[in-house]
Amino acid sequence: VEARGIHHVGLAVLDLDEALATYERLFDGRVERRVRVEEQGVEAASVLVGGSRVELLAALDPETPVGRFLAKHGPGMHHVAYAVDDVGSAIRDLVARGAEPIDAEPRVGMFGHEIAFVHPDSVHGVLTEVVSSG
Amino acid sequence: VEARGIHHVGLAVLDLDEALATYERLFDGRVERRVRVEEQGVEAASVLVGGSRVELLAALDPETPVGRFLAKHGPGMHHVAYAVDDVGSAIRDLVARGAEPIDAEPRVGMFGHEIAFVHPDSVHGVLTEVVSSG
Repeated sequence: VEARGIHHVGLAVLDLDEALATYERLFDGRVERRVRVEEQGVEAASVLVGGSRVELLAALDPETPVGRFLAKHGPGMHHVAYAVDDVGSAIRDLVARGAEPIDAEPRVGMFGHEIAFVHPDSVHGVLTEVVSSG
Repeated sequence: VEARGIHHVGLAVLDLDEALATYERLFDGRVERRVRVEEQGVEAASVLVGGSRVELLAALDPETPVGRFLAKHGPGMHHVAYAVDDVGSAIRDLVARGAEPIDAEPRVGMFGHEIAFVHPDSVHGVLTEVVSSG
């Protein structure tokens, strides 16, 4: 896959407001968007730090993917997302190159972009996302 | 701190050659530099993925910081590094804003840049580095 670069780093947090305040205070972070997606049980904020982006993820319920991650690992780094031109061709290309997809087809992510995840076992323990943000 | 953006994402790996091959194969990664630092017990490669950078870290010995990280967490995301103009003023500014430093003064990192680490407890579980790459 020809990635343009890192689109964002996803970080699991226990308290979204507190984490946002930390990124604003320490790194002059600026909130780009904040969404609450009940059906995925997650509240998220995309935060610009200089020319880069971190995505803060908080669980609305322990029995959600982010909630289970937090219960197992505690807060911290959750995934790395690479920007690609086209998520569909990127995920097919990744599979052809031996990666194990979580999403074999693109789906729409929390912020409205096309996304797909690759299983961390394919990428040395790193949950990896490809995203097309137009 | 006014960060320019993410300088790199640090990833702990069990086998540096295998991880490099994966990033080359899946993401067209290009090795920027590779170093072996006996006194820190680490071998590392900086890999360009599009316009971004990941830093792959392998332990030369289990009794090293990266070795202990791998024993505890397994391979995966290790730290996030932000590019700053001046590491000395950045770390002083971070401390003034309430962060707990690991390095209260800049030191020279594996790739010859000035770096300093901030304790993950200050940043919601994320081991955070500031780096000045000139």
